[in-house]
Amino acid sequence: MENTTTIAIFGHKKPDTDAIVSAIVMQDWLDQQHIKATAYRLDNPNSETQFLLNLVNISAPPSLPDLPQGQAIALVDHNESGQSIANLNDYQIQYVIDHHKLGDLTTSEPVYIRLQPVGSTCTLLFLMYQELALTPPKNLATLMCGAIISDTLNLHSPTATAQDRFALKQLSNIADIKDLDSFAKQLFEAKSSVAHLTDLELINSDFKKFSFNKDNSPLHIGISCIETVNPSQIFARKDALQQASIRLKTQSNLDYLLVIVVDILAQQSWIIASDDAQNAFMAQVFHSEMQDNLLSIGNKVSRKKQIVPALESFFAER
Amino acid sequence: MENTTTIAIFGHKKPDTDAIVSAIVMQDWLDQQHIKATAYRLDNPNSETQFLLNLVNISAPPSLPDLPQGQAIALVDHNESGQSIANLNDYQIQYVIDHHKLGDLTTSEPVYIRLQPVGSTCTLLFLMYQELALTPPKNLATLMCGAIISDTLNLHSPTATAQDRFALKQLSNIADIKDLDSFAKQLFEAKSSVAHLTDLELINSDFKKFSFNKDNSPLHIGISCIETVNPSQIFARKDALQQASIRLKTQSNLDYLLVIVVDILAQQSWIIASDDAQNAFMAQVFHSEMQDNLLSIGNKVSRKKQIVPALESFFAER
Repeated sequence: MENTTTIAIFGHKKPDTDAIVSAIVMQDWLDQQHIKATAYRLDNPNSETQFLLNLVNISAPPSLPDLPQGQAIALVDHNESGQSIANLNDYQIQYVIDHHKLGDLTTSEPVYIRLQPVGSTCTLLFLMYQELALTPPKNLATLMCGAIISDTLNLHSPTATAQDRFALKQLSNIADIKDLDSFAKQLFEAKSSVAHLTDLELINSDFKKFSFNKDNSPLHIGISCIETVNPSQIFARKDALQQASIRLKTQSNLDYLLVIVVDILAQQSWIIASDDAQNAFMAQVFHSEMQDNLLSIGNKVSRKKQIVPALESFFAER
Repeated sequence: MENTTTIAIFGHKKPDTDAIVSAIVMQDWLDQQHIKATAYRLDNPNSETQFLLNLVNISAPPSLPDLPQGQAIALVDHNESGQSIANLNDYQIQYVIDHHKLGDLTTSEPVYIRLQPVGSTCTLLFLMYQELALTPPKNLATLMCGAIISDTLNLHSPTATAQDRFALKQLSNIADIKDLDSFAKQLFEAKSSVAHLTDLELINSDFKKFSFNKDNSPLHIGISCIETVNPSQIFARKDALQQASIRLKTQSNLDYLLVIVVDILAQQSWIIASDDAQNAFMAQVFHSEMQDNLLSIGNKVSRKKQIVPALESFFAER
């Protein structure tokens, strides 16, 4: 970081493909407007993201260094402090580009904040290019296609909107991707290749923390999503994942920690069993029964659109 | 309100021209996308807004009725709960279009939130029409010109940006306004005609509450801006305004209540004296000395861009 006039862009902790790609793409969007910015990452890219970066021969953004107080920053694909760097308020937030619910973000001056209920932050970034009559270069368009496919489960997630479909179509033309379904299949297989990860690494690979309000006191819940085309491979590790998740919950001072297995192809999800108290509570929230240490939650495949809102409304009704 | 599928749009309490006009315009922007919405107001329009509405023969939006829980709402020209309806979280916020700092807003699901550091919410709305290749009708374009001129003090405020200049130029073409300066002069004269208002009404006519964080406890400050082309008319009432503001501060449980007189033409401002404690404190914040019951704060004419940030940074330094 040479000076504070260069904006440091980064996505959330435990980044998924959309978080890493959005930072890279936002740097280009600002570059094209002659605004100096550098993309960073808060943690290592997952296997899907690395596969995609290799495909276009782009390196992952560097790890975010310690920032000087007052540093100009841009948040992409997140806005809640728990998913970002510590002490967010020590820095000068200049841009927030995201597609999640608005959490605890505040700013001390008016800044550029753009949140839209679309399936992928890259869809929103594509609209922002379009609004300024700009176009992302071919290699970034490929990354954006990957991010949209990843975040919307190839447009099958309930988070997918007409804008995602439009953006993916336009971007695949720029990227010259002829067969999107085969491209998606490669991505999902890369995402599902998790045999090399420890149980803790697997839980952490797409993990977010949320704060809920229960009877006017805060409740902290971590939610890990393991999206896979091969759920039986994950189920084979479910006892080890259960033990690892209980340890992580205690270490992280979380009230609950959900490990959710999402079958991308069948669009079905299960919560892996935890301790008895959590199991009983989740059975109540999701109106389901634990069988074989798996709580089926049906077609709830989207953390932001289905799982978090189910928890929110459960607490609101109490 | 027939049902909860019609979105209720409203600007902040004690509305200025931008707050009223943004609600009217946002209804049209949604109408043009076949989304059902109705504009409302939280308080009566001020004399400038009424002048502008009369000019294009449009009625002020109706006063917001009691809303059923879960009602879909759109906030324009504000986002802080203190400036909005009570119990914001009982309703389903679907859109927030604003140009102020982000306060205490949260949502339970991803929604459309658009905040940009431009001079007027109407500028942002114009960009949103453009992005969808839509155009506001002529009478609304006239209202939007008025709102931009009002909020940016005819582009002289430090809040005015290149986008405001661009929007005002395009909108004045649609509105067929040949002489923008003469149009601005009429507006400012309408805004300055406050002889019929009581002291309390004058203080309340453009009044906003803010929460600051001082030594980890909240501090509540109300800030009234009296923008005028005729400051001597206001200064003639300063003793009465001082007494009324002290009474209002106590009634409203505010820690401080600033009444600021902004000379639109000279781009100069003064804070009217309050009680001794507040006077001493404001002299410290603004590095100025009270003379004749007026604290000159120089060219600080923008509440959002200069006065609130001056208070924020004063508390941050403690």
